[in-house]
Amino acid sequence: MHKKELIEYGDQKIEWARAHMPVLEIIRKSFEKEKPLEGRRIAMALHVEAKTAVLVETLAVGGAEVAITGCNPLSTQDDVSAALCTRDNISSCAKYECSNEEYYAAMDKVLAIEPDITIDDGADLIFKLHTERQELLPNILGGCEETTTGIHRLKAMEKDGALKMPVMAVNDAMTKFMFDNRYGTGQSSWDGIMRTTNLLVAGKNVVVGGYGWCGKGVAMRAKGLGANVIVTEIDPIRALEAKMDGNLVMPMKEAAKIGDIFVTTTGNRDIITREHFEVIKDGAILSNSGHFNVEIDLENLEDMAKGVRTVRKNIKEYDLGSRKVYVLADGRLVNLAAGDGHPAEVMDMSFANQALCVRHIAENKLANGVHAVPKEIDMHVAELKLMSMGVAIDSLSEAQCEYMCGWKSGT
Amino acid sequence: MHKKELIEYGDQKIEWARAHMPVLEIIRKSFEKEKPLEGRRIAMALHVEAKTAVLVETLAVGGAEVAITGCNPLSTQDDVSAALCTRDNISSCAKYECSNEEYYAAMDKVLAIEPDITIDDGADLIFKLHTERQELLPNILGGCEETTTGIHRLKAMEKDGALKMPVMAVNDAMTKFMFDNRYGTGQSSWDGIMRTTNLLVAGKNVVVGGYGWCGKGVAMRAKGLGANVIVTEIDPIRALEAKMDGNLVMPMKEAAKIGDIFVTTTGNRDIITREHFEVIKDGAILSNSGHFNVEIDLENLEDMAKGVRTVRKNIKEYDLGSRKVYVLADGRLVNLAAGDGHPAEVMDMSFANQALCVRHIAENKLANGVHAVPKEIDMHVAELKLMSMGVAIDSLSEAQCEYMCGWKSGT
Amino acid sequence: MHKKELIEYGDQKIEWARAHMPVLEIIRKSFEKEKPLEGRRIAMALHVEAKTAVLVETLAVGGAEVAITGCNPLSTQDDVSAALCTRDNISSCAKYECSNEEYYAAMDKVLAIEPDITIDDGADLIFKLHTERQELLPNILGGCEETTTGIHRLKAMEKDGALKMPVMAVNDAMTKFMFDNRYGTGQSSWDGIMRTTNLLVAGKNVVVGGYGWCGKGVAMRAKGLGANVIVTEIDPIRALEAKMDGNLVMPMKEAAKIGDIFVTTTGNRDIITREHFEVIKDGAILSNSGHFNVEIDLENLEDMAKGVRTVRKNIKEYDLGSRKVYVLADGRLVNLAAGDGHPAEVMDMSFANQALCVRHIAENKLANGVHAVPKEIDMHVAELKLMSMGVAIDSLSEAQCEYMCGWKSGT
Amino acid sequence: MHKKELIEYGDQKIEWARAHMPVLEIIRKSFEKEKPLEGRRIAMALHVEAKTAVLVETLAVGGAEVAITGCNPLSTQDDVSAALCTRDNISSCAKYECSNEEYYAAMDKVLAIEPDITIDDGADLIFKLHTERQELLPNILGGCEETTTGIHRLKAMEKDGALKMPVMAVNDAMTKFMFDNRYGTGQSSWDGIMRTTNLLVAGKNVVVGGYGWCGKGVAMRAKGLGANVIVTEIDPIRALEAKMDGNLVMPMKEAAKIGDIFVTTTGNRDIITREHFEVIKDGAILSNSGHFNVEIDLENLEDMAKGVRTVRKNIKEYDLGSRKVYVLADGRLVNLAAGDGHPAEVMDMSFANQALCVRHIAENKLANGVHAVPKEIDMHVAELKLMSMGVAIDSLSEAQCEYMCGWKSGT
Repeated sequence: MHKKELIEYGDQKIEWARAHMPVLEIIRKSFEKEKPLEGRRIAMALHVEAKTAVLVETLAVGGAEVAITGCNPLSTQDDVSAALCTRDNISSCAKYECSNEEYYAAMDKVLAIEPDITIDDGADLIFKLHTERQELLPNILGGCEETTTGIHRLKAMEKDGALKMPVMAVNDAMTKFMFDNRYGTGQSSWDGIMRTTNLLVAGKNVVVGGYGWCGKGVAMRAKGLGANVIVTEIDPIRALEAKMDGNLVMPMKEAAKIGDIFVTTTGNRDIITREHFEVIKDGAILSNSGHFNVEIDLENLEDMAKGVRTVRKNIKEYDLGSRKVYVLADGRLVNLAAGDGHPAEVMDMSFANQALCVRHIAENKLANGVHAVPKEIDMHVAELKLMSMGVAIDSLSEAQCEYMCGWKSGT
Repeated sequence: MHKKELIEYGDQKIEWARAHMPVLEIIRKSFEKEKPLEGRRIAMALHVEAKTAVLVETLAVGGAEVAITGCNPLSTQDDVSAALCTRDNISSCAKYECSNEEYYAAMDKVLAIEPDITIDDGADLIFKLHTERQELLPNILGGCEETTTGIHRLKAMEKDGALKMPVMAVNDAMTKFMFDNRYGTGQSSWDGIMRTTNLLVAGKNVVVGGYGWCGKGVAMRAKGLGANVIVTEIDPIRALEAKMDGNLVMPMKEAAKIGDIFVTTTGNRDIITREHFEVIKDGAILSNSGHFNVEIDLENLEDMAKGVRTVRKNIKEYDLGSRKVYVLADGRLVNLAAGDGHPAEVMDMSFANQALCVRHIAENKLANGVHAVPKEIDMHVAELKLMSMGVAIDSLSEAQCEYMCGWKSGT
Repeated sequence: MHKKELIEYGDQKIEWARAHMPVLEIIRKSFEKEKPLEGRRIAMALHVEAKTAVLVETLAVGGAEVAITGCNPLSTQDDVSAALCTRDNISSCAKYECSNEEYYAAMDKVLAIEPDITIDDGADLIFKLHTERQELLPNILGGCEETTTGIHRLKAMEKDGALKMPVMAVNDAMTKFMFDNRYGTGQSSWDGIMRTTNLLVAGKNVVVGGYGWCGKGVAMRAKGLGANVIVTEIDPIRALEAKMDGNLVMPMKEAAKIGDIFVTTTGNRDIITREHFEVIKDGAILSNSGHFNVEIDLENLEDMAKGVRTVRKNIKEYDLGSRKVYVLADGRLVNLAAGDGHPAEVMDMSFANQALCVRHIAENKLANGVHAVPKEIDMHVAELKLMSMGVAIDSLSEAQCEYMCGWKSGT
Repeated sequence: MHKKELIEYGDQKIEWARAHMPVLEIIRKSFEKEKPLEGRRIAMALHVEAKTAVLVETLAVGGAEVAITGCNPLSTQDDVSAALCTRDNISSCAKYECSNEEYYAAMDKVLAIEPDITIDDGADLIFKLHTERQELLPNILGGCEETTTGIHRLKAMEKDGALKMPVMAVNDAMTKFMFDNRYGTGQSSWDGIMRTTNLLVAGKNVVVGGYGWCGKGVAMRAKGLGANVIVTEIDPIRALEAKMDGNLVMPMKEAAKIGDIFVTTTGNRDIITREHFEVIKDGAILSNSGHFNVEIDLENLEDMAKGVRTVRKNIKEYDLGSRKVYVLADGRLVNLAAGDGHPAEVMDMSFANQALCVRHIAENKLANGVHAVPKEIDMHVAELKLMSMGVAIDSLSEAQCEYMCGWKSGT
């Protein structure tokens, strides 16, 4: 495609997303007026697609200079990236299907703006800052982290005493993880799987690895599409919850034998590995919605396979002799690498949190360490969202407030 | 794309579909051995995509010469069409985005083989045979019709004494309409809507026009994706059923004011028309899963609009001044025109019925009129499907058979 | 309880039911005015509980003399029966926990009024008329049959040339079986099971025997309560449907090993029998929602048991040595024998059909054989029901009518 | 009923519950062997029904002397209470339908054993200890609190510096509130409503007041039974969650006009009050599943009513002139006052936490204040429960543990 056409497509996508992100739109307007990010330099590593672009624009409108790259080699949409590059104060280095070298080189490029604020999805930028680019750390006012896996990684760093900057745990805002991770991942994973395979979900045995918020969303939607859902877990409380939600619960070794479609959502590695490939059902379709491509052990799978070939866009067939196994999007986030990512409306909430947290960093001197998103920001995002949806709710009467604070009324 | 590449993609898609159509595979094997269609010439007008290609191959393997064209100007996949043309005894005249003239000209081309059997999806071939090409009627052994709308049309012809050939009502086989129309349309419509809009279904007001088998499927999946579902109907019994299934039921005039996403599935015209556009909610998204593009009244919409523009692939924005309305895929079948159509596994059942009905026509001298699919074919398809899914079921014991036939045992 | 108190309770129940049966109320008013049943004598054998009482009252108001008895030894509510006996032109011979002798003796009592119309639920009255009481047949204008099992029995009689009177297949009205059998049985079976056992449904393996309308309802509600649902079937098409609705499907022999709660809904005998008891899971709970108590083979179960005892109201424990099995309500209709039967609102529709069919019999001379409920009655009941629920729907425009009747418009 | 018969029924119920509380059974066995409560005196105020009785027995088996009374005037089952009194070291003062005076007098009776440990459901015992019976406080080792409302009350006391004893927040164990409050309340509320009203849930507008864990459970099951669900909330995040779960969300003032069945679950007062009664739909059914009977404002309702009468067991009709409103179980917990309370299997988990927390109090010297249930107890309960259900799960490999603790692996 010619660059001009590319930019045009990108612009279309961004406009469409923007029209469905009303909370971010309200924030954009206040940023435009108040310029709270004047003079800030922001380095970002996020999935470079339309919704992210709306966040980037919002930050730039707030006065910042923004450089962005991808956080996954397969999730960049080149048209969006090209369109972003036409904006003032915004540069994008992201490229679809980049090699690992290109991937990390692009990170260096965004760090070249000498950021004072970072935004990560998986903590790769922050990791680079703490290893190869420590000289940049003193300038950093703080960072924002988008995903469970990144938070996990940052808390491990903090525990080891290795975290040398403040980070806002944007993922842990209720208006983020309860919506983005559940309804977002739930819908977009199935969007990706359905459009890639054109197979029926109804009547299938769908195996969901992990019953965290992402897993709950994926399982809920699988059931909504008519599947029989099997959950694997390592946490007994979540396992019980999965069971009582009407799912089957069993070890992956058992699930592997009967599963038709697999979706991993754990944030951990080796969820489907050699011992499972050895018993896996012929024709099984494997996909991943967890952050990194380590949940399906492709190394071992390739090692076991007599042959590997692409049988349809984003589908690789691994020939295990007696059985064939299909992997979607190379085990990368199936909703992004084989789809358009989360629906705009949930990213509206996630990125509203991002924008407000960036402002929070810019306006407050935070101590090093992982910080929770302030309750006010969380509630504010929820209120704006409800308003934009035209939903009114009740408020507490004085008598009710008093009752809730008191302890003297009984049976 | 170069023709070679086009063919390669088409072949890939067909192979993938074939691998997920095990019932048709069994039939293919028997056709290969028994050649029941030796010497037959079959004219087809179906959605030319991968699953249809597997049916076409099966018929050709059975000994027939097959010519196919599309049954909808937007549902043809050019790569599949190109791949089909490389097969012996198969020719395809279908083209994506053809004009109305090209559409009907292609019909004439497939009729040029002087068919003795026809396969229709919407009865367009049969209609042409009865109007412009009556000279071909004497050769016709019979036809097959795939869809509710077509059957409806044929029964109207039969009632008017106008139907001059035997037609198998393939749509009315239980293993067709209960599965294809419900689970197929249900999933593929949402696949099409989600991939086209990248919007969230959860929390939306989804308006489903009609609660027949397609409407039930679309409503069921909308609910499974977290929507609040509103059904419109003209039949009081279906309206009651919709209500008791937990949907809201109201006239379209009311639904238009609150709906976020609309899907029409009625087989009738003017489901969303001027009086609804006058009150429709700003930002509403309109799509159609019924056979013809007459359910959303685009003529009136265009007439009312101050401007029309494409805002994203397959999305047209109609600017009504105070409000904007978005139409997907020009109001054509959203699952086919903006997706890959039904999942392979349901088409496996529908097309198994087609293949067996074509054989039935070839081997029996049928009277003019609309014929039901023989119960044996229906049951046979179900049994093969269960077998292919590895599902075993019970059978009646002698005592149970006797009990079911008797009437003397009481309380 | 004293008789006076009994009557008072019965009256309360009937009043409550009446208030929730608005369609029957409208019919009652027209009956009151038009007296279409003047001089008719109606013999009934139905479950004698509150909703039935409202039907009985309606018929009496229409001018008939009505005698009623039960159609199941465990489904009579004595308070309702007592209250009915206080009404003019109504007598009830039904008694809870009557013996088989008492049961059939009561039938003779209601036949003593020399009926010209009968209403059956299971065809026991009609069977008696055709065997022991043939002298009454010449007077009979016709009968109504309420349930699938009865229709099945009557069609078997008709096929054998043994049916000597006209019978309206009330069960087969769409406003009856699609609602009563599905939503009614679905809810009331679980109401009965939950109140009897106080056990959790969520997370349980629930085995539903049969996927007809009753089975669909029971499975749908089991899933709605959080169960993992397993369906057993003998019909491959229904088995496929069950599978695609997200249920597991397997033979009872396999299901018996893993089921926690069983509900049979087939209308056939021996659904759970010796070969299943031999492998059944310890602690399994067995219940039946099919018409007769032959679905669970209690004879064999008793034979295999080392001991039988009542462990809670309506729960019998069968000690099989290594395992214990629990049977609810002696395998009789669990929703009636261990509950209050279907919700009033569905019986409103079923009994509106009954009342209108009785009138139809009274006003038309019908030929011997099984007759379908006229479409007008069916539609009329649906329209009245929608009206009573305050639900408005669309109607066809002239252009739409024309389109539906025509066949000349195409792609 | 004679006392002997009463005891027999009570014993039956307790035995049935015990058979379905396998986790408590395992704890009972260890208590029997280790006698960790030797010499302890435990005062309890809980719903006195079968599952509670199994907890009481367990504590007594552990060596304690136990005195129990009810925590709600309508939730006591007299047969269970009578059966408990036949056990060694157990006395019950609970009585169904006791007056407020009797209710509080019974509390004094159980405090007469001079407890060192208390168990509350709503904090009434603790409240009495801190007001009228402060002389007993010095002996107290600690207390356990079962319910959200009680915890709320205790935290308010703690905040006011008024809490003079340690209390374990049993409600806040994940194996308690995620299961008991959600699946328990969800099922048992509908069990209570269905058995009391015999009305259809499908197709009804069900209004759920509050979307906490109880509200989520009630809404989820309402939808599972076919209702159209409307949620009212005061918290914007919960309101959003309710909306995205497919419910309608609106202020109670709007919901009141269209609701058919109402269930309040907030823990607050005045959820349905005068301003709502003024517009409430004719025939509306009001019920409460929150702890205290203050959610439906009965005082105002009575004041507005022209007449009040009992129309069926546990149903009171309030005649508002143009409209009638029905209140179930006097606005007391509908699952307990009009049913048998939570299913045994969820109480198994809740009471396993209770038993282990009582032991924790007995074996540790805790500081005054509200204490969280130790994670080990929570996990232990979950593991035992899974084991009892025969569910196996995965465990982390060494490589996975390492990966989860590390932070150096990236994209």
